[in-house]
Amino acid sequence: MLEALKKQVYEANMLLPKYGLVTFTWGNVSGIDRKEGLIVIKPSGVEYDKLTPDNMVVLDLKGNKVEAGYNPSSDAATHLELYNRFSNIGGIVHTHSSWATSWAQAGRGIPCYGTTHADYLYGQVPCVRNLTPEEIEEGYERNTGVLITDYFQGQKLDYEAMPAVLCKNHGPFTWGKAPFEAVHNAVVLEEVAKMAARCEQINPQAAMAPQSLQDKHYYRKHGVNAYYGQQKR
Amino acid sequence: MLEALKKQVYEANMLLPKYGLVTFTWGNVSGIDRKEGLIVIKPSGVEYDKLTPDNMVVLDLKGNKVEAGYNPSSDAATHLELYNRFSNIGGIVHTHSSWATSWAQAGRGIPCYGTTHADYLYGQVPCVRNLTPEEIEEGYERNTGVLITDYFQGQKLDYEAMPAVLCKNHGPFTWGKAPFEAVHNAVVLEEVAKMAARCEQINPQAAMAPQSLQDKHYYRKHGVNAYYGQQKR
Amino acid sequence: MLEALKKQVYEANMLLPKYGLVTFTWGNVSGIDRKEGLIVIKPSGVEYDKLTPDNMVVLDLKGNKVEAGYNPSSDAATHLELYNRFSNIGGIVHTHSSWATSWAQAGRGIPCYGTTHADYLYGQVPCVRNLTPEEIEEGYERNTGVLITDYFQGQKLDYEAMPAVLCKNHGPFTWGKAPFEAVHNAVVLEEVAKMAARCEQINPQAAMAPQSLQDKHYYRKHGVNAYYGQQKR
Amino acid sequence: MLEALKKQVYEANMLLPKYGLVTFTWGNVSGIDRKEGLIVIKPSGVEYDKLTPDNMVVLDLKGNKVEAGYNPSSDAATHLELYNRFSNIGGIVHTHSSWATSWAQAGRGIPCYGTTHADYLYGQVPCVRNLTPEEIEEGYERNTGVLITDYFQGQKLDYEAMPAVLCKNHGPFTWGKAPFEAVHNAVVLEEVAKMAARCEQINPQAAMAPQSLQDKHYYRKHGVNAYYGQQKR
Repeated sequence: MLEALKKQVYEANMLLPKYGLVTFTWGNVSGIDRKEGLIVIKPSGVEYDKLTPDNMVVLDLKGNKVEAGYNPSSDAATHLELYNRFSNIGGIVHTHSSWATSWAQAGRGIPCYGTTHADYLYGQVPCVRNLTPEEIEEGYERNTGVLITDYFQGQKLDYEAMPAVLCKNHGPFTWGKAPFEAVHNAVVLEEVAKMAARCEQINPQAAMAPQSLQDKHYYRKHGVNAYYGQQKR
Repeated sequence: MLEALKKQVYEANMLLPKYGLVTFTWGNVSGIDRKEGLIVIKPSGVEYDKLTPDNMVVLDLKGNKVEAGYNPSSDAATHLELYNRFSNIGGIVHTHSSWATSWAQAGRGIPCYGTTHADYLYGQVPCVRNLTPEEIEEGYERNTGVLITDYFQGQKLDYEAMPAVLCKNHGPFTWGKAPFEAVHNAVVLEEVAKMAARCEQINPQAAMAPQSLQDKHYYRKHGVNAYYGQQKR
Repeated sequence: MLEALKKQVYEANMLLPKYGLVTFTWGNVSGIDRKEGLIVIKPSGVEYDKLTPDNMVVLDLKGNKVEAGYNPSSDAATHLELYNRFSNIGGIVHTHSSWATSWAQAGRGIPCYGTTHADYLYGQVPCVRNLTPEEIEEGYERNTGVLITDYFQGQKLDYEAMPAVLCKNHGPFTWGKAPFEAVHNAVVLEEVAKMAARCEQINPQAAMAPQSLQDKHYYRKHGVNAYYGQQKR
Repeated sequence: MLEALKKQVYEANMLLPKYGLVTFTWGNVSGIDRKEGLIVIKPSGVEYDKLTPDNMVVLDLKGNKVEAGYNPSSDAATHLELYNRFSNIGGIVHTHSSWATSWAQAGRGIPCYGTTHADYLYGQVPCVRNLTPEEIEEGYERNTGVLITDYFQGQKLDYEAMPAVLCKNHGPFTWGKAPFEAVHNAVVLEEVAKMAARCEQINPQAAMAPQSLQDKHYYRKHGVNAYYGQQKR
């Protein structure tokens, strides 16, 4: 079942080592078929060179396995919560990519220092707080998703304009319209995280990019007036 | 038309991923045929592994497409302005290469800390200010070129001796007599940007290289008394 | 003799350059056959591309060579001491991997800043003191092992939950149930060392991950209630 | 002439890009035949993928070309001065390798923070001063060699125990008994430079490795009591 989505999720997973975003098995990509109400996700702890489209795991929206086979990623409950609350997304990525994770460990959001950031991520990439011991105990992975989505709602952040978040002392999640776009955003986030750290090293008083420049670059690539690329409108 | 220049611009574009200067499509190279008054530039948003000499875009000096085909790089208007004002250059490169972009985000020019820098870039690499909201609104890409060329003119900088600039909160542009030389300068800039940042980390009081050393190295490679390499004079 | 273990130790040694943990010959892996009371270790100073399973060196637990052939790694006496005192380990790795060695040179243990660390290393990675001139003179390599194991005993550290140590001004040792697991832990340590340094650069006041989060991640992967991966219990 | 040495020098030059020590043509290796009183050195400005054993350049000890062919490296006069004054060396390397050059730009010698350093370089790697404008004018490349060798003599440094130097605002030179050993030392220097910078970042108060530890590691690999590797004595 869901052969096309399994292939897509498999290929998106394989991009993580290609782009240097994962060591060992420290990452996972999922995709959703919203019509069927099913998600496809990487199996837990299986090495990337052992992955095939066939061993991707299918779950319903409550997290039940709907086929015999591997256990899903241990982070599946976070993915499910994000799919449930961010209704327009089609793919999710979690990694421990080095620079983004370093910001998460530092407990800081990533300021928008330039156009590379503004091209894809509108504003500061947020860093959500630690879960409480009670929240961890009650359901660590699901509550990670609750924390992220509550934060976006509370801060009135548009998850389509800010398709990335850092979880404090943990690492990043990114998403997009499809699994490939979620991986694209994971690569952007890592590059942006690296350059922001170096920017602050070079100038500890560095200021964020002016709003007018951020707007120009974001809307050059997104929305009805976008003119980057070959798209027709 | 312009088959030889298209091939040259294509090959110069392909050097950007080879030298690790671009992620995804974040860079572009152009070249100019000054006799014909035409430039050749990378198409906008097309991935490097999809590029061919044939899909390079030909523009006249006002930016009009002179052949059917792809849209040009969204930065074409900046290239055009540089070609119009820097009359001896034959190629231009724009990237978001990591270290040079980090300096641009930090809003600092790159001091000349050593001979690697002095061999190719005479003096501090300048970092030009942000455009105003009005300048962005009026014509972001063209005004980027106006800002750069006005800055060189105002500071009496020799664009042939300083074939590089940083745009604040954005990234670098480099140029040269031909597209390959512009790419060469983009690689030099990235290497120099990396070593300058590390130099300041190792010694926050580091001073610029003495002028006599800068002169020695620059003129060992440039001008009538150059003796580096195999060239005959 | 010990063909299977020699092959395992050989393959584990070859993973060190694959994972970028060694320059030249600066690392070694060993394994133990506890029933036979014999260890297998890399020969001293032999380049990785010259290694074969056959030139691995077999030692008894007093360090005597039990076959003709190469000299063992000069660090063999450290390995022996660790095997003697850490009775459940089956493999040991020593490298001069860049980030872990930088922490060792800095004389600091590596704080647990996040879940990447907590997934495999329970608590702060310890950094043991320098040997005294007398200890060096008396038996540098053996006393390195004595220092490490005494430290774990004195601090009541569980060597199975903390399979890594830094030796001040020297570098890391890691271990595991088997040679491959010891290499896995060496890779984890290097990645964790890198991210901890960057974390402190990004936020000099960064705090360790909350204990509840460390526990969650460590026990998600270890012990009777682990649920990461495909293992059956 | 000197076919064997040309081949050796060629192969040693080709190791520079292999080990990531050079960008473009920014490095050179030479070797000496002391019986013949001739040196072999890389041609100036020739790209590494164009090098062959045949285009290596032969010079006498006064720097005269003794065969038709390419111009020698512009740094040949520095090499000659080092060969003249350091009578036991057989090979020299100059690069602009990134970390070593960053220390040179910072104007600091590299403290011995650990055993990786002590294994090959006995004590702090020195950083010599800038040449004066008069010294540059009078003979830049030769006077670079004079400065280095005078410094070693004045400081009573043993060039065999410290086969490396940094030239302020320029970059490193290393040497050894043969071209390959000189390259080996260039790789060691780069690795040590990287780890020393990171060490200071992790602990700005980091202290040098104790002398007893430095001695132990240096003499474990060098001199009559060495026991590292497979050598017989």
